[in-house]
Amino acid sequence: MSQSSAPISQAPVNLLHKATLIDQPWSPRVVAQMNQYQFKVVRIEGEFIWHEHPETDEAFLVLEGILRIDLPEGCVLLGPGELYVVPRGVRHRTAAEGQAKLMMIEPQGILNTGHEGGERTAPNDVWI
Amino acid sequence: MSQSSAPISQAPVNLLHKATLIDQPWSPRVVAQMNQYQFKVVRIEGEFIWHEHPETDEAFLVLEGILRIDLPEGCVLLGPGELYVVPRGVRHRTAAEGQAKLMMIEPQGILNTGHEGGERTAPNDVWI
Repeated sequence: MSQSSAPISQAPVNLLHKATLIDQPWSPRVVAQMNQYQFKVVRIEGEFIWHEHPETDEAFLVLEGILRIDLPEGCVLLGPGELYVVPRGVRHRTAAEGQAKLMMIEPQGILNTGHEGGERTAPNDVWI
Repeated sequence: MSQSSAPISQAPVNLLHKATLIDQPWSPRVVAQMNQYQFKVVRIEGEFIWHEHPETDEAFLVLEGILRIDLPEGCVLLGPGELYVVPRGVRHRTAAEGQAKLMMIEPQGILNTGHEGGERTAPNDVWI
């Protein structure tokens, strides 16, 4: 995993404000770091691709809108202020009717598409 | 660090609702886990004690109210939806005028009073 190029911010981070600064959906941006874990904000619209992270759990917190997480056994719906942890190795697909803004927490170096790769893989470790 | 006695919830966690279920301030309760990190909610009122965590950074997200974090060089104020990471080894003291509800993230096994101990040390690893 690469070292981040940006320092840890010492000012409070307004998560929703940070999410509004991102110019396109499905482009996670790092806003803070805790040990080797990064806090990322992202705007999403429509459906992502199915993928998994064999090496780590992944946490999602909704900031605005409704997040649907499709899982092998069904889906969960999260509104603002709701948290969900996708266990490591569990295939999942995030989606939103309209638009949603999220915070994700995962170890530094984890790609948004897991091991699937492809055109929807976003640049990693980009701070905003 | 002890193993948790509770399974990771597979339902979305409404953080503010969980925080309202705690019967007393300064009593963190675990609501979710991601790898070896725990998400805790807590209600606070007044000032805590100065302490530090030499082994880990510690993240705070405000759910309701205003959180003041006193640091050696001054203080930061956080409102709802704002995040702050206290770096490992940095002495700090959390406080709220009136009441505030927070989410904290830190590795499993970290005590609320760090290495200070004392009567304000809360039971650890208690789920709600």
